[in-house]
Amino acid sequence: MGKTLRFKKAAIIGVGLIGGSIAMVLREKGFAGSITGIGRGLKNLKTAKRLGIIDSYTQDVGEGVSGADLVIVAVPVLKIADIIKTASRFLKPPCIVTDAGSVKKAVIDAVGPLLPKGVRFVPGHPIAGTENSGAEAAFPTLFQGRLCILTPVKDTDKDALDSVRALWEAAGSRVVEMDADTHDKILAAVSHLPHVIAYTLVNAVAESAGKEEDILGYSAGGFKDFTRIASSSPEMWTDICAMNGDNIVRMIELFQNRLDALKSLIAGKDLEGIKSDFGKAKALRDSLINRERKAANK
Amino acid sequence: MGKTLRFKKAAIIGVGLIGGSIAMVLREKGFAGSITGIGRGLKNLKTAKRLGIIDSYTQDVGEGVSGADLVIVAVPVLKIADIIKTASRFLKPPCIVTDAGSVKKAVIDAVGPLLPKGVRFVPGHPIAGTENSGAEAAFPTLFQGRLCILTPVKDTDKDALDSVRALWEAAGSRVVEMDADTHDKILAAVSHLPHVIAYTLVNAVAESAGKEEDILGYSAGGFKDFTRIASSSPEMWTDICAMNGDNIVRMIELFQNRLDALKSLIAGKDLEGIKSDFGKAKALRDSLINRERKAANK
Repeated sequence: MGKTLRFKKAAIIGVGLIGGSIAMVLREKGFAGSITGIGRGLKNLKTAKRLGIIDSYTQDVGEGVSGADLVIVAVPVLKIADIIKTASRFLKPPCIVTDAGSVKKAVIDAVGPLLPKGVRFVPGHPIAGTENSGAEAAFPTLFQGRLCILTPVKDTDKDALDSVRALWEAAGSRVVEMDADTHDKILAAVSHLPHVIAYTLVNAVAESAGKEEDILGYSAGGFKDFTRIASSSPEMWTDICAMNGDNIVRMIELFQNRLDALKSLIAGKDLEGIKSDFGKAKALRDSLINRERKAANK
Repeated sequence: MGKTLRFKKAAIIGVGLIGGSIAMVLREKGFAGSITGIGRGLKNLKTAKRLGIIDSYTQDVGEGVSGADLVIVAVPVLKIADIIKTASRFLKPPCIVTDAGSVKKAVIDAVGPLLPKGVRFVPGHPIAGTENSGAEAAFPTLFQGRLCILTPVKDTDKDALDSVRALWEAAGSRVVEMDADTHDKILAAVSHLPHVIAYTLVNAVAESAGKEEDILGYSAGGFKDFTRIASSSPEMWTDICAMNGDNIVRMIELFQNRLDALKSLIAGKDLEGIKSDFGKAKALRDSLINRERKAANK
């Protein structure tokens, strides 16, 4: 980069897994003079301070962002606009505001009009996570080797974009820029659809038995791995369905058409057809893994 | 058990991951005077002998099973009946024949009439596996802590059933008996449907992009874990679809109904409905994991 990232005061709204982890990166790299955590849960904020993730905390959004030159909004995606609305009159140019929401178009549409002139918004989405949540789950290497997508719009400030890019690169992420629509379509395919499918699969399997407990007891390793993401937060994924519903419904329909076709092959005992379908999926999946191995060995 | 399991000659038909691993258990526990491996691939048989998994090998099924008092058939499920047909006139009472096929009713229906009187068939299904195959992938702890389902029929010999049960228990498995129909319905739900879904998901995601390579490159951890089983053998899973098609189609339809309902909730922005669906799946999945943890800590 050759660029010195140095903020006087960073404010992290939502000191959970993502917010806490990026705060730890700011700290490790010496990017921020001070780090203020903002959240609703006092216990979590106290934990974050005790762990040295933040220097101070407040439950008051306005107080927390006052004087900040970097604000990172890491709250559930449906709450981003409300938070920014509350924060907006305390934000002063040339403050940079960025987010970590997993849907981008709806966030940009909602947040854009709320910000004072000169406050520079950079929409972002670090694709990282674990099953755990809260400040206690945070760790500074969470983003290493992971993808971070930035979705600037036409009037996104170039310097602010560069700063946010440098921040995620310092966290170890591979940063990619694309427009918000493309982001939302891609994520609907590779992330939102799989979650919807995982939840549905668990429910369908449970429903297939008279007593739910019994059948799940027979599940082997494959099913467990496969449905790991069904342990994700229902609240978070409901929000994502609310904010990227059109793309998700489109992906569900595409999936349904494929499943219908496969069902016909199985019902018709078209073994060559089934094998060709499975073989295509295996080849794609294997190529993905091989590509990642190569990238990791670079 | 208090029972001494001691066979003069064990014949393993198909010395792959499953067959090789159970051979290693026989060896470790001193259950067999000698172990003969039978297979089509000479290279794999030589590897198995070099690794000490088997004492001798042959590509001739009849020669291999001659004189055996235990025959374990660990070939792809669609090939079990053909193998038994070839072997049958070389099988002598009171030889025990057992299999490891992941579909049971079709195997029992096909194998039953082929066996000479007094040769004792015990249908089995060790629910274990890895992504790897071949004798080189075998290891004797593969079955530890895993489920093994035995599906005896009315005229299954009680002593033979006990011996096969003791064998899998010695391998470290939890052995459960049930009828073949129940087995096939349960496996369609917890194993066969998830595989069908995983293959379909990979194909649907790839199809959603103009160029397949691009979109898979954006896939995050969740998708990778979720689709791990899409790297399973297309041949094996085609066979399973051929042999348990009715149950699989029934499960696909049940899944489709659930997915249709969820799609309507998402399209209609019924956030409470979505959250309730997701929450139910999370609770079920979490309870499964907790139960397994408890079982592991016992």
